[in-house]
Amino acid sequence: MAPRTLKLTLAYDGTGLVGWQRQPAGISVQALLEDALAAFEGGPVIVHGAGRTDAGVHALAQVASVALTVAHEPHAIQRGLNAVLPAAVRVTAIEDAPPGFHARFAAIGKVYEYRLVTAPFVSPFHARYAWHVPQRIDLAAMREAGAALIGRHDFAAFQGTGSAIVETVRTLDSLEWTGGGGPDRPLIVTLAADGFLRHMVRNIVGTLVDVGMRRWAPGAMAAILASRDRARAGRTAPPQGLFLVAVRYREDAL
Amino acid sequence: MAPRTLKLTLAYDGTGLVGWQRQPAGISVQALLEDALAAFEGGPVIVHGAGRTDAGVHALAQVASVALTVAHEPHAIQRGLNAVLPAAVRVTAIEDAPPGFHARFAAIGKVYEYRLVTAPFVSPFHARYAWHVPQRIDLAAMREAGAALIGRHDFAAFQGTGSAIVETVRTLDSLEWTGGGGPDRPLIVTLAADGFLRHMVRNIVGTLVDVGMRRWAPGAMAAILASRDRARAGRTAPPQGLFLVAVRYREDAL
Repeated sequence: MAPRTLKLTLAYDGTGLVGWQRQPAGISVQALLEDALAAFEGGPVIVHGAGRTDAGVHALAQVASVALTVAHEPHAIQRGLNAVLPAAVRVTAIEDAPPGFHARFAAIGKVYEYRLVTAPFVSPFHARYAWHVPQRIDLAAMREAGAALIGRHDFAAFQGTGSAIVETVRTLDSLEWTGGGGPDRPLIVTLAADGFLRHMVRNIVGTLVDVGMRRWAPGAMAAILASRDRARAGRTAPPQGLFLVAVRYREDAL
Repeated sequence: MAPRTLKLTLAYDGTGLVGWQRQPAGISVQALLEDALAAFEGGPVIVHGAGRTDAGVHALAQVASVALTVAHEPHAIQRGLNAVLPAAVRVTAIEDAPPGFHARFAAIGKVYEYRLVTAPFVSPFHARYAWHVPQRIDLAAMREAGAALIGRHDFAAFQGTGSAIVETVRTLDSLEWTGGGGPDRPLIVTLAADGFLRHMVRNIVGTLVDVGMRRWAPGAMAAILASRDRARAGRTAPPQGLFLVAVRYREDAL
């Protein structure tokens, strides 16, 4: 039978996972899906994810594509996958996609959010899903610094070291703040862009928190960005606050 | 120094805990608190909890009382406790209480909520905090059955077997439904009463779900209640959907 292409939407709690991508050791989302789908297919399967989320990073709506030859209804595959996957990973939607649809190459944008608890303690129900910053931070300064990043820029200063990506220009469409920062109501910064470099959100958030702690004035953000020098930017925020929220495609790609 | 009494408000994720009460094996909230407070006190400490939540049950606002002789400010004790407790347990508030205040004996009411996901799958972010009931259930029938429980009744039919409690009359002030039952938006039933018997909420919810599955008509609830017979009621809902939400005290008790 000719292969058909499926688009899967996934939610996962990244706690204890080594991230999206299959690794020599540890449990990855890709390996869980490929192993579960191989049982349907009766042979090896390759799953492509839109975003290579790092170890400990969560997803509300990661997208993946896979070519299969089996004729099962998409919903039967969804039910079967959710029956065998660990509770930390769920297929939240599944649909047939045009032949050749590739979740990563076809993506035209992504949305990430990063959650911060700025209270003296973190609710037990948010400890796995936020960065705890108990120090007093200047949110107005962080907002001002964040606004300087919106637009089309070379984001090399916020690219994780060791990345093989050389084209580092991206368009950050928006950077928005919601929530309150309380023990059970995190401060959430949501970033939408045509694409993100490795560790880009975590490096931006770490730098924004450094601004919030008055390590730099908000106006320093433009100079950090212009430097294209990772050493000029701030720390890398820890993975557990980061969520892949959405992946965008052109309508004619689906 | 004369002992002073403190009132602690606690949130905990009961996953992996053996419940409130200290047990020969496993980690209990009481033992975590007593051991942490003993370091402040320099000697053994007994902590009384308002509700003896079972293994796997969560709390948004459990209340506990403790007599201490140390003179630390309450907030210093809160900070110290939260620094040594595991992330699954947090002291969310602390205050001085009148001498002799006892969190359990002084309580005049409690509020519990129980979360159900009735969708085909559960979001990874709710799997630890809800009972998954994927079968089609009749919510209108459950609402009708639940309403029959409101008021002052002998709730012996919903008391867990093996309980030593002989006075089984309680006043259920309200039983309310909120939420939707979706993968990441549980259906929540909230119960307020002057007190609860062992497993009472879980036995009520299990029976309501049996009604929702048409094992019984809604009208059967009154007969089950009147029977005072545990064997007449339904299953015991699993612990991970249950949250102790609030404990009520008379104003003059605090």
